[in-house]
Amino acid sequence: MFNIVLISPQHPGNVGNISRTCVQTDSTLHLIRPFKFDLSNKSLRKAGIDYWDDLKLVIHNSVDDFFEYVKDKNIYFIETGSNRTYCDICFKVDDYLIFGREKEGIDQKLLDEHKDKIFSIPMTNKIDRSLNLANSVAIVLYEGLRQNNFFK
Amino acid sequence: MFNIVLISPQHPGNVGNISRTCVQTDSTLHLIRPFKFDLSNKSLRKAGIDYWDDLKLVIHNSVDDFFEYVKDKNIYFIETGSNRTYCDICFKVDDYLIFGREKEGIDQKLLDEHKDKIFSIPMTNKIDRSLNLANSVAIVLYEGLRQNNFFK
Repeated sequence: MFNIVLISPQHPGNVGNISRTCVQTDSTLHLIRPFKFDLSNKSLRKAGIDYWDDLKLVIHNSVDDFFEYVKDKNIYFIETGSNRTYCDICFKVDDYLIFGREKEGIDQKLLDEHKDKIFSIPMTNKIDRSLNLANSVAIVLYEGLRQNNFFK
Repeated sequence: MFNIVLISPQHPGNVGNISRTCVQTDSTLHLIRPFKFDLSNKSLRKAGIDYWDDLKLVIHNSVDDFFEYVKDKNIYFIETGSNRTYCDICFKVDDYLIFGREKEGIDQKLLDEHKDKIFSIPMTNKIDRSLNLANSVAIVLYEGLRQNNFFK
């Protein structure tokens, strides 16, 4: 239904967790290399248990490869610091929702090239850290599903 | 802003993860005993790192104690199987959003007593398991925040 894109994720447990969300929502998971674990990683499989075999998964060898792949598609970057929220996105089936690394987020260079495509998840900002990556994916994805009347 | 209630959670990592979401959204976390870990648990602290000290946390000794505590409040049960979705809730600040155990969900007896208060998160139902608990909390909480214009 939607496409979830993780650029060089760091924690295999997050990838497993997100794979479960993707299967439950008929979404496709895209992983962009490099990432420092392989897909048989124990934490990944534990978090994605019972789900992995049903996952629609696409691996991209680089950010450049990925952008070639989506050149005709709607893409949205979810990153802190935008004054537009993810609820401002007019979600359409087959959109690509792009998330950066757990700590560093998305490269500034990439953000500078796509300024009109950056949307944030509002937080209180009482502390200088963001939501867990898997939760961020779930929040944005379910707003897209809500706007598209879920699975009806 | 909102109240997140976990009835006898099983996995301390989930509780840590949810504590992070609560701090980032100015929500209060309520934990209902019994649960089989203590609050210094390593997985819990790892998932909730940097957040724990800022968490508004209330521990309830039993389900009965909790229901006495919220007798004048708006409560909603998030559980599979309802034909009403969490988006059908008209969220108001200070609402209580109640989630059951990771595998078993909420006790049937409790659900039978509150039939008009049960709401589900839509899924494809291709497989017989639900979303991760922390993701479920994030999805429902952010719909409540969206309806209340986030932190403005």
